[in-house]
Amino acid sequence: MTRTAIKGNLAFTPKRTGFEVRPRHYLLVADDRIVGLSATLPDDFQDATILDFGDCLVVPGLVDLHVHAAQYGFRGLGMDMELLPWLETYAFPEEAKFGDAVYATRIYRQFAEDLADSATTRAIVWGTIHAHTEVLFTEMYRCGLGGWIGKVNMDRHAPPALTEDTNQSATDTRAFIQRLAGRYPQLQPVITPRFIPSCSDNLLLQLGLLSRDYHIPVTSHLSENHGEIAWVRDLMPQSRTYAEAYDQFGLFGSPEPCVMAHGVHPEASDYALLTQRQVTIAHCPNSNLNVLSGLAPIRHYLTAGVAVGLGTDVAGGFSLSIFDAMVDAIRVSKMYQLYIDPAAAPLTVSEAFYLGTRGGGQVFGPVGSFEPGWLADIAVFDDRGIGGGNHFTLSQRLERLVYLHREASLTAKFLAGQPVGRPAGLTGAR
Amino acid sequence: MTRTAIKGNLAFTPKRTGFEVRPRHYLLVADDRIVGLSATLPDDFQDATILDFGDCLVVPGLVDLHVHAAQYGFRGLGMDMELLPWLETYAFPEEAKFGDAVYATRIYRQFAEDLADSATTRAIVWGTIHAHTEVLFTEMYRCGLGGWIGKVNMDRHAPPALTEDTNQSATDTRAFIQRLAGRYPQLQPVITPRFIPSCSDNLLLQLGLLSRDYHIPVTSHLSENHGEIAWVRDLMPQSRTYAEAYDQFGLFGSPEPCVMAHGVHPEASDYALLTQRQVTIAHCPNSNLNVLSGLAPIRHYLTAGVAVGLGTDVAGGFSLSIFDAMVDAIRVSKMYQLYIDPAAAPLTVSEAFYLGTRGGGQVFGPVGSFEPGWLADIAVFDDRGIGGGNHFTLSQRLERLVYLHREASLTAKFLAGQPVGRPAGLTGAR
Repeated sequence: MTRTAIKGNLAFTPKRTGFEVRPRHYLLVADDRIVGLSATLPDDFQDATILDFGDCLVVPGLVDLHVHAAQYGFRGLGMDMELLPWLETYAFPEEAKFGDAVYATRIYRQFAEDLADSATTRAIVWGTIHAHTEVLFTEMYRCGLGGWIGKVNMDRHAPPALTEDTNQSATDTRAFIQRLAGRYPQLQPVITPRFIPSCSDNLLLQLGLLSRDYHIPVTSHLSENHGEIAWVRDLMPQSRTYAEAYDQFGLFGSPEPCVMAHGVHPEASDYALLTQRQVTIAHCPNSNLNVLSGLAPIRHYLTAGVAVGLGTDVAGGFSLSIFDAMVDAIRVSKMYQLYIDPAAAPLTVSEAFYLGTRGGGQVFGPVGSFEPGWLADIAVFDDRGIGGGNHFTLSQRLERLVYLHREASLTAKFLAGQPVGRPAGLTGAR
Repeated sequence: MTRTAIKGNLAFTPKRTGFEVRPRHYLLVADDRIVGLSATLPDDFQDATILDFGDCLVVPGLVDLHVHAAQYGFRGLGMDMELLPWLETYAFPEEAKFGDAVYATRIYRQFAEDLADSATTRAIVWGTIHAHTEVLFTEMYRCGLGGWIGKVNMDRHAPPALTEDTNQSATDTRAFIQRLAGRYPQLQPVITPRFIPSCSDNLLLQLGLLSRDYHIPVTSHLSENHGEIAWVRDLMPQSRTYAEAYDQFGLFGSPEPCVMAHGVHPEASDYALLTQRQVTIAHCPNSNLNVLSGLAPIRHYLTAGVAVGLGTDVAGGFSLSIFDAMVDAIRVSKMYQLYIDPAAAPLTVSEAFYLGTRGGGQVFGPVGSFEPGWLADIAVFDDRGIGGGNHFTLSQRLERLVYLHREASLTAKFLAGQPVGRPAGLTGAR
C-alpha cells in the first residue's frame, strides 16, 4: 500500500453549508483513497511520502459535468446568437471537421492539455459522432484526467456530414463501448445521444438497451432553451415532457447513472422524476447566459433533493474553469431570486463550491470531498498572487480563490492519489 | 511634432453597430492625437517612428468609468451580501484603514500596477475621504494611466472614522482640487460625494459650488440597489427622485461633465434628465450581479440617447477587466430581454466594445476611438494564445478577444500617444 501525507490548509464541503477548513493539516492518502485528516502525522504514516505545501490551499479537484471538447477550437465565438442558430452556424460545421483524424487530434490534445492546467480533475466530455472520439481517451489519460467520454449520436435534423444511419450509430456506439470500457483507469465511455431533436425513437431505444446491457452511464441535454423545448414538444407528441422523452427509452437514470445538462426550464413533474431516477443536473450557467437560455432554478432543485453539479458547457460556455461556473451559478441564483422567485435564496459561495466538487463528483463514485474512503482527487493552490496577506481567514481565502482563481497558481494536482498535470515537454503546444 | 505609425490589425467602433476593421494598416499618430489610418505609409510619415506589431490586434485603450481603488485589497470578498450590509461589513472598515499613509500607498500602488497590466488606459478612480488619495495621482501617473481621481465626501451615516465634518469636507476637497488640478497630464480631480445617504444637503450644496467655481467634473452613485433607493427616498423627501437629489445641488451634469454609476433602477423621468444634463451612466454589471442590485436597462438608456460607458466597480465587482465588464454587460442585457422586457434587444459584442471604449471614453474628451483628431489611447494584443490560427476573420478575432482576453497577451499600450505600461523593475511588487 502506498501512503502519502499531503500537508497544507485543507478545505472542502462535506455539506453545502460552509467550508470545512483544517489549517496546516495532513491529508492522509492510502493508494487511491483518503483515509483521514490529521493535525499530526499518525504512527502508520511515519514512513509515508510527505508533501508539505506550506501555506497553500488544498481542495478537492473540481468536477466538470458537461463540456464539448469538439467545440473547444471556437470557444468565445457566435455568442450573439441563441442556442439553435448557434448550433447550426458554429457548432455543427465545426464538429463536422472531426471526421479528420489530424484535426480531431489537434483540438482534443489542446483541450486536454488546457484542462490539465485547470483545477478540474474529472469531466464528462463530449466528442462527436466520429470514432476519433477515442483520441479523447488517450489525451485525457496522458494528461491525468478522469471522467466519462462520449461518442455523440445523431441520426436526424443535423447537417448531412453529421447525420448517422440509425443502426450504424448504435453499432458504432457498441464498438466504442466494447473497445474502451475498462481500458483506461478513471475513464469510461458514456452513452451520449445529442438531444431529442437529433435522435430518432429507434436510435434512442437502441441506446437505452446498450446502456442496460453494458452498464454504461448516460448523458444528454434537457430543457435548455425555450426554442429547443418548443421543438422537442413538436417532435415528441407522445411524451408529456422532455424528460419523459428520454425516460421511455431507459435513458433517464436508475439503474445506470445519468447526467442531464441544463434543466433551465423544468416541468413541474421533472423534480419528482429527477429525484426518483437519481438523475444529476449539470448546471451550466455560463452557457445559459450566453445562448439566451435563462436562469435555472437551482435552489428549487436542491430543495427538492435533486442532485446538482456544475458544467462549463464549452463552447456554449466560453470558459473551461469550474471556478467561473461557481461564480456564474451564484450570480444566476441572485437574479433568479430578484426576478423570478423571491423565496429562492441565492447560492452561497460554499454551496457553489459544493456543486463544483462533491455535488458533481458523486456521479463518478465517492469523488469531490476529503472524507475518509473518498477518492483522492486534489488541487493545491498558492494564493499569494491574490494579495492581501494573512489577515484573511481560511474561509475568506477560499471565497477569494473562487472569485479570483486566475490570480492564484495551481501548484499540484492528484487524481485518485496519483500526482498528475500537463505532461512535461508539451507546454505551449497549442 | 512627433510622428508615430503603429502597424497592425486595427479595430475600433466609431458606431455601436459592428467593428470597423483595417487589416495590417498604419495608425498614424502625431503627438497625442490620431491623424489617420492608412494601408500605406503617407509621405509625411516617411520619417516617423514605425512600430510594426505584425499580426497583432490594435484597439483603443479600454475605459473604466467606476472603480474604487481603496477597495482593491479585499476584492472577491463578501459577495454573499447585498449592497448595504456589504458596505457596512467590508467596504467601510477597509476604507477606514486609508488614514494610514503606508497602507494607502501599498494598496494604491498595487491597484495602479495591476491596472497598468490591463487593457485599461483611463479610469474614474475613487479613493477615500483621506488626503492620501493624492497617492493615486502619483501612482497612476507613474503607471501611465489617465482619468479622474476623487477624494470621497461623507458627512453622515458612516462609521465615525469615515465621517467628516461638513465644512472640513468641503475645505479638504477645495484643497485637493487646488493642489492637483492640472498637475499631472491626463489626470484630474473629480468631485466625489459617496452617495446621497452619506452626504448632507449642506455638503452637497458646497460640493456643487466647488464644481461650478473650479470647473471640476462630478461622479457618484445613482439608483444602484432596491435597499439603497428606499433609503434615499426616506432621506430626501423633498426630491421626487434620486437623480433630482443630486440635480438640485448642481451635481447632475451640464455644464460640468458628470458620471453616475449604476442606474439599475431608474425612474421614468430619469431618461429625459440624464439626456438633458448629458450625464453618462457607468454601467457596472459585475457589481450589479454580485451585490444583488439587478439588471440595468441599458438598451433603454441607449434608445433614449443616454450616454453609457462601462465600469468594473471593484470591489462590488471582483474583476479589474473592462473586457469582463463587456461580457457581463452582454449577459445582463440577455437576461433583461428574457425576464424584464422582450422588446429590449440584447447588446451585441460590438455594442459592448463600444461602451467599453468610445461610450465611456467621451467623458474625457475625444477618447476611445481611432477617428482623426481623437486622443491616441491604444492597446495592442497578441492573440495567438487564444488558438485557432488564421481561419478566423478579424471581427471574429475581436469577439474572441473580448471573451477570452486572458488567453491573449497585452503587447503594448499608449496613452495620448505615449508608450506606457507597468514601470520596469516593479513587477511582482504585490
